[in-house]
Formats: sequence, structure tokens, C-alpha cells
Amino acid sequence: MEEKVLLGHGNGGKYTQRLVKELFHHYFRNDLLDEMNDAAGFSTPGERLAFTTDSYVISPLSFPGGDIGKLAVCGTVNDLAVSGARPLYLSAGFIIEEGFPMASLRQIVQSMADTAKVAGVLIVTGDTKVVPKGCADQLFINTAGIGVILPGADVSGSYARPGNKIIINGTIGDHGMTIMARRSELNFNNLLRSDCAPLNGLIQELLLDVPGIRVLRDPTRGGVATTLNEIAVQSGVGIALDEDSLPVQGSVKSACDILGLDPLYLANEGKFLTVVPQPQVEAALNVIRKHPLGQDAAVIGEVVDGPVGKVYLKTGIGGKRIVDVLVVDQLPRIC
Amino acid sequence: MEEKVLLGHGNGGKYTQRLVKELFHHYFRNDLLDEMNDAAGFSTPGERLAFTTDSYVISPLSFPGGDIGKLAVCGTVNDLAVSGARPLYLSAGFIIEEGFPMASLRQIVQSMADTAKVAGVLIVTGDTKVVPKGCADQLFINTAGIGVILPGADVSGSYARPGNKIIINGTIGDHGMTIMARRSELNFNNLLRSDCAPLNGLIQELLLDVPGIRVLRDPTRGGVATTLNEIAVQSGVGIALDEDSLPVQGSVKSACDILGLDPLYLANEGKFLTVVPQPQVEAALNVIRKHPLGQDAAVIGEVVDGPVGKVYLKTGIGGKRIVDVLVVDQLPRIC
Repeated sequence: MEEKVLLGHGNGGKYTQRLVKELFHHYFRNDLLDEMNDAAGFSTPGERLAFTTDSYVISPLSFPGGDIGKLAVCGTVNDLAVSGARPLYLSAGFIIEEGFPMASLRQIVQSMADTAKVAGVLIVTGDTKVVPKGCADQLFINTAGIGVILPGADVSGSYARPGNKIIINGTIGDHGMTIMARRSELNFNNLLRSDCAPLNGLIQELLLDVPGIRVLRDPTRGGVATTLNEIAVQSGVGIALDEDSLPVQGSVKSACDILGLDPLYLANEGKFLTVVPQPQVEAALNVIRKHPLGQDAAVIGEVVDGPVGKVYLKTGIGGKRIVDVLVVDQLPRIC
Repeated sequence: MEEKVLLGHGNGGKYTQRLVKELFHHYFRNDLLDEMNDAAGFSTPGERLAFTTDSYVISPLSFPGGDIGKLAVCGTVNDLAVSGARPLYLSAGFIIEEGFPMASLRQIVQSMADTAKVAGVLIVTGDTKVVPKGCADQLFINTAGIGVILPGADVSGSYARPGNKIIINGTIGDHGMTIMARRSELNFNNLLRSDCAPLNGLIQELLLDVPGIRVLRDPTRGGVATTLNEIAVQSGVGIALDEDSLPVQGSVKSACDILGLDPLYLANEGKFLTVVPQPQVEAALNVIRKHPLGQDAAVIGEVVDGPVGKVYLKTGIGGKRIVDVLVVDQLPRIC
């Protein structure tokens, strides 16, 4: 194959056919993809389905803990998982800048294939466009995903009730700070690492083992602060966070101190928030902490009557401050 | 709303929320989208489903006969339609260059909404990313689509058999030549116009009224030549095209003569090819020609024993030439 991606790889002709056959079909191999038709056909896997999409424009393309390929699979898998669905099928749309190294594309496609395998999903349909040099920055990937909603699952951001506890499955801000440090070329002794991971296995166990899980969200762009604000608005409640109980890695905390950033606004790519009625908190924590992706799970706050639609933080020194939705970007192209 | 798209419109925070609410939800309004969760949930609409995706990177964004928004809906709807499916739900993923005029985005979103209405599909989930100035050229859109495969429909590029006739629903090359003329700033007296249109209504009528339709394809990138080559390979047959019966608009023909291009390789965005057993040809032509998008339908050739995997053209003066898959790009960013 060519060493660099050419415009011809996106023209639908001979070069495209070769790229699809030798790269995408080689790594993503499965029966549905092999049919080589305009759409993948599949039998209905259940009574209710979930459908979602995300484009990934992260820079740099590779980072400690992952790359754009892993992210593109995890992000969409996680959106399905927090909707109460078992993710099944993904599409993959590539927009590639002319001249992009074929070896890098191969590595990213391999990473997508590996992550799809871990998450138990199939990449069944795709598309490749190549744009002239300067018309895109290296590589963008879109994935859309279809999942089957688990029997009995009924989750929505509108189900939080006063008295419920807020649980997160681990430390916050790892992904955002890793990318930020990488981009600013700050050296934090290589201690930073993205949390990018497929959460569907853990979330499925939680939904099956702990009835009463009604709110699930992944705090990606905008961070925990923005996601909790959305839940507060959708449910018409207030949320009180407890600063001392927020799990933050030492390296992330130090980097935040140096850069003057708040981990509550940093993106996460392997975390979910759930809102749990008090009687089920222990059971939920047990299930989450038993899973490799949930060992640092913690109760970080509770749902309160009000102020409605607001999130506030009880600080370590006994103060209170409102935690608003993210307004000004800390960093573009974080995912 | 802001006059230009800001980086903050893609950060997942306050600006993103406003863009989603005031623009996307305003134009795409439907119950599934209004739930505002991470994925759209829907009840299974049938026994077998089809799933497809395409990214759209066309330049210029607007052209006679359409714009990137109309194209992004039609392209994915048509991929589902030629798979024998009734398109139901689309996702929409936007990658926007910082500074893109909000008025242009609004127009494109309106165009997507209008086209979705005509095609009878709902845009139920989406995503917005904004990249810094210079990291993308204006706007890219990805749509993925889900459809329900029509009862009894069983179409594939592998079902062409010797003796079958090749039908197209109208003139070829209109989209490709329109974009090419626009980009080269050639003036063809404004006679060129993209054929961009949703074909699902016409194709559904054809599948319901004419049993025996087993091959359907839309000749987009790579044109009629490339698509027929794919069918010839998948079915293990030859295909003989009749030059004199190829429907080509006068304006497209003139432009091709001036630019030294072959309409067989130009992209179409409102055309499909079908391969029909001889006894059903009249019935198929009747159904297609009755539809506004099929008035210029024609039989353009037939399936032959061989050479296997090849397409050849019987020229007007009695010659024969092999019509290969597109190799060198006529034009990047045609769709």
C-alpha cells in the first residue's frame, strides 16, 4: 500500500477499494462488514434500541492511555452504555488529510479494532473521505452506534430525586489534564494518563445487579460540573457536591494547581456518574469497586431540594460555592 | 445568538447547549431528539434493520440544486434505500471551523430539516465539534442512518445474472459536473444543476410493485462506471453498456467535451442503478417513469457472461471499449 494517504483513496474508485479491503476490512473483519453493500443489515436484537453519534477531532492523535481510534470507539460505546443499552454495532466515518502517513492510520485502525473487541461491539459499516492538504488537520473520525436497551432499563437525566447520592466510578479530570499537559508541553514526570476506556461491561453489571439505577451520564466535554448541572436542570433538583470526597489523582491535582484549573471542568473518557437512592448506595459501590474500572469509586455528593437546577460545592473549609456549567473553553479538541 | 461559530460552541458547556437548543433542536424538532439524552431510544420498527454512514466534505458548501445539508440527508437516505430499507432515523455530526458564519450554518441546518421532511426521516441524535481556524475547511457533516428492511426485500450487488437489463432512473453526471464547473469557475450559462434528491420514495414503490428487483446501487463517487464494475465483480458477470442509450443532459455533455471528461465517471446524487430480469423491464420502467425523479429512466445495457468482472461500452460507431473502475480522481470533495 502507499506510504501516505492520497486524494485517490477517497474517490470511491480503485484506491478506495484497496484501502477498504486491505486496511478497514482487514482489521474490522466481521460477517456484516464483509457483505460489502451500501448498508449493513442485521436482525433486530431486541425490543428497544438506542442510537447515538460523536465526531472525534482530538489533538494530538495519540496520548498516554490511548489514541483517537480508541477514543472513537469508547466515546460512542459509553454514550450507549449510559443510555441503558448494550452496545452492538458501530459505524466509522474517516475524514483524512491528504498526505497522512498510512502507518499512523493503520495503527489507529488497529486501535479501534482492539477496543471494539474489548467492548464487544462490531464495526459494521464505514466511509472514507480524503480532503486536500490544509483542508483538515490530519484525521477526524465519526462513529455512530446502535445498542439494544437492556430489559427493564429506564434511565434518564430527569430521574434524580432529593436524598439520592451521586456516585462516580473513579478519579476525575485524567483525560482532560493528560491532553492539556501534552499540548502545553508541560512535563509532569509522565504521571498523567487518560482514563479512556469502554464502560459498557461495568455499567451492564450495575444495571443488572442494582435495580433502581435510573440516572447514568458520562462526564466528557465540560466535565463533572457540566454534566451534573444538566442532571440538576433535567430533574428540577439541586445537587450538593462534597469537595473532600472528589477523587482526584495527585498528578492531576498538582497540574491543576500549577495551571489554575478546576478538575470539575476537565473531560473524562472512562467515567460515569450515577444517581442512586440511599438504600442502594452500598450495593452499587460494591458492584462498581469490584470492577477494574471502578476501584476508586466514591460518593461525591447528594441530590437536594434546591436551588433548583444548580450545583454547589461544599468546600473543605466549610464554605459553599456555585459550580456553573462550563462557559469558556479550557481547551479545544479535547475529544 | 453569536454571528460566528466560536470554539466555545463545541466545548460541551453553555454555548454548546444554546447552539443545540436554538439551532439544531429548533429545526430538527421531534420527540426522540427532545429527550436530550446521550442516545435516542426507539422501539424496534421491524425484523431486519439496515445501518449506514457517510461523511460529507463537499466544496463549495452550496451549489445549484443543493447544499451540504441536503446532500448529507440524501446521501445516507439513498444508501439505505438501495439496501432495500425504508430509512427512519438519522444522526448528524457537525465538525465546524471556528469563525464559520452562524447564518450559513442556520441555512444548512434548515436545508437538512427540509430534506429530512421530504424523505420522511427524523434526525434523532447529533454532535457538534468546533476546531480552531485552519484545522478544517468550513464545515464537514457526518450522517449515519437506520432503516427497516422492507418485507421480502433481498438486494445485493451479487445478484446480477446474464440476460438481466441495467436501468438507471435518469441522466448521468449532473452532480459531478455541477460541482466541477462551480469549482473551475467555468460558465455554462447556468444550465448545470445537481440531481441531489432522496430516492427512497421511488425505490420503495419499485420494490413493492416489481418483485424480482434484486440489485440496487447508487452511483455516487466514481460514477456509473465504478458502480457497475463493483456489481460485475460481486456477481461474477460481465456488463455491456450501450453508449447511445446513456441519458446525458446536453449541458453536461458539452461541459464533458470541453473539459475532456467522461460522464460515466462523474458523481450522481439522485440516481440509482437497478438490474432487472427481462420479463420485468417494462413494469420497472413504468413505475420509475411515473415518478418525478424517474422521468428520464432508460435501459442502458445488459448483463453478459463475460469477461467476468468487467464492464465494456458498445460505442455509437460500433466499437467496444473496456470501462474500468475510476483510478485517478477527477475532483476531490465532490460529496
